[in-house]
Amino acid sequence: MKLARFRVNDWESYGLVEGDRVSVIQGSIFGEYTVSQASYPLHRVKFLPPTRPTSFWAIGLNYAAHVAHQEVALDAERIRRESVGFRPWHKGAGCIIGHDDPVVLPSEADYVHYEGELVIVIGKPARRVTPEEAPNFILGYTCGNDISGEGSWSPDLSNWRKKGSDTFGPVGPWIETDVDPHRLEIATILNGTERDRGSTSGMAYDCYATVSGISQFVTLRPGDLILTGAPGAVEQLHPGDVVEVEIPGIGTLRNPVVSEESMG
Amino acid sequence: MKLARFRVNDWESYGLVEGDRVSVIQGSIFGEYTVSQASYPLHRVKFLPPTRPTSFWAIGLNYAAHVAHQEVALDAERIRRESVGFRPWHKGAGCIIGHDDPVVLPSEADYVHYEGELVIVIGKPARRVTPEEAPNFILGYTCGNDISGEGSWSPDLSNWRKKGSDTFGPVGPWIETDVDPHRLEIATILNGTERDRGSTSGMAYDCYATVSGISQFVTLRPGDLILTGAPGAVEQLHPGDVVEVEIPGIGTLRNPVVSEESMG
Repeated sequence: MKLARFRVNDWESYGLVEGDRVSVIQGSIFGEYTVSQASYPLHRVKFLPPTRPTSFWAIGLNYAAHVAHQEVALDAERIRRESVGFRPWHKGAGCIIGHDDPVVLPSEADYVHYEGELVIVIGKPARRVTPEEAPNFILGYTCGNDISGEGSWSPDLSNWRKKGSDTFGPVGPWIETDVDPHRLEIATILNGTERDRGSTSGMAYDCYATVSGISQFVTLRPGDLILTGAPGAVEQLHPGDVVEVEIPGIGTLRNPVVSEESMG
Repeated sequence: MKLARFRVNDWESYGLVEGDRVSVIQGSIFGEYTVSQASYPLHRVKFLPPTRPTSFWAIGLNYAAHVAHQEVALDAERIRRESVGFRPWHKGAGCIIGHDDPVVLPSEADYVHYEGELVIVIGKPARRVTPEEAPNFILGYTCGNDISGEGSWSPDLSNWRKKGSDTFGPVGPWIETDVDPHRLEIATILNGTERDRGSTSGMAYDCYATVSGISQFVTLRPGDLILTGAPGAVEQLHPGDVVEVEIPGIGTLRNPVVSEESMG
C-alpha cells in the first residue's frame, strides 16, 4: 500500500496511491482512517514530504561499500574512526523537501553530493523496543537523499551545515507499507544515467536494529524519519542536474538541482 | 506579555498569562489571534512545552565563564578546541518536556548535569537575516535546561544521547515577548538553593547573532527553539532533586528529577 501526502488546488491531504491516481484519505495514517471516493490523477497533484517528523535521523557510514568509497574520497583515517559502532545523528527537520522540489546549492558550498538511501517511517511511539519488536512500530519505507556538502563550514563539529542546510533532505514520493526493507535495491540516477546500485542487505545496522537502538534512549514518534545510509559510491551535484533515487518496490524520488543564485 | 501552551481537562490551548490566571487564546500565536473571556487559575492548568518546534537548536560553550568551568571539570584541551567559532547543533525535538515534567535519569547514565539557559522562540520564518533584522523574527524568550549526560555512550561522535535522551530538554513555563534578552540574569536553583547565577550580557554569540548565523544556512520556522548556552557552573543531578531555572523578567522552569527505575 502506498500512502502519500499531497497538495492539490492549495489543499493538503493524505492519500492512497493506486495506479495513476491518488484517493483522498480521511483521518490519520497513524491511526484510524478511511479512503474516500474522491481521487485525483497523479500528474495533477504535488507530492509533499510524506510526514512532518518530530525528529529526522540519519545513520552514517552504514554500508561497507560506502565506507570503502569514502576512505578513498576523503580522509581515510577519519572515515575509519567514524565508521565504528552505531552512530545515529540528527539531520534536522528544517531541511526536508519533497519529490520534485529543487535541491539548492548554497553559495558557500564547494562540493555537494547525493546519497540515495532507504528511509524508515515510524508508525507508533517506540521506546526500548527490541529488534524483534521493531517491525510493529514501523509504518513503512520511502526514498531519501541525504544531500551532503563541503564548504567554508567543513571544520564544524556538528553536521548542521554539511548535512542540514535548507533543501538537503529530499524524502518521498510516498510511503510503501508492504515491503521487506532488507531485500531492496537502491539505484541512484544522475541526469538519466544510473551511477550506483546497492542492496539494503548490506546494512551494518539493519532497519530493525536501528529502530531498536535509537529507541533505547529516545522515544521514536509517529512520522519520525530515519535515513539508513548510502550503499555505495556518491558523486558531486551541479546546477542543472536531476538526481533520482529509485528503490524498486517503493518508487522514485526525483529532484532537480539549482544554484542559490538562480533562485534570485 | 506571557504566552503559554497549557492543558486543562484533557484539552490543550494557547493562553495569555496575567497575574494568577491564564486566558484562552483563539487563533495562532504566530499569526492572528484573540484573547477570549474564558480563563483558568494557573494552579488548575498543566503547562506544556510552549511550542512544538520543527527544530530544537543549542549553542554550545557560549559563555567564557562556562568554558572555564568545563575546562576544569572535563578534558581542557577538548573544551578549548570545541569552544572556537559559532557552533549550533541539533538537540533533537524528541527530548522536549515542559514545566513540572520529570527529568528521567537513564539507567545507562553515569553523570547527568543541568544547564540553565535562555531560550529564543522564533516567531516568523527567518532566512539570511542580519543580526540587526533578527529581533523582527523572534517572538520571545523562555527558560530552558540543557540536560546533559555522560555514560556508556560518551565516545559518541554526535550528542544524540549525551544531550538528546528522552526528557533532557525541559522548556517553559511560557514565552515572554517583552524583554531585552541581553540584560537578563539566569539563576539555577537546586533543591531550593541557588547554585549559579550569570548574566546574558556574557554571551559570546548573542541572540541576534545566533538567529542570523543559523538562518544563513537553515530557515528558522515559527516555534523553533534555540538554547543559548549555560552562563557558568553546572552540577550533577540525582534522583529526588528538584532543579529550577529562574530568569527574572521571564519566569521559573521547575523540574523534578527521577531515576528511570522508579518510573516502573
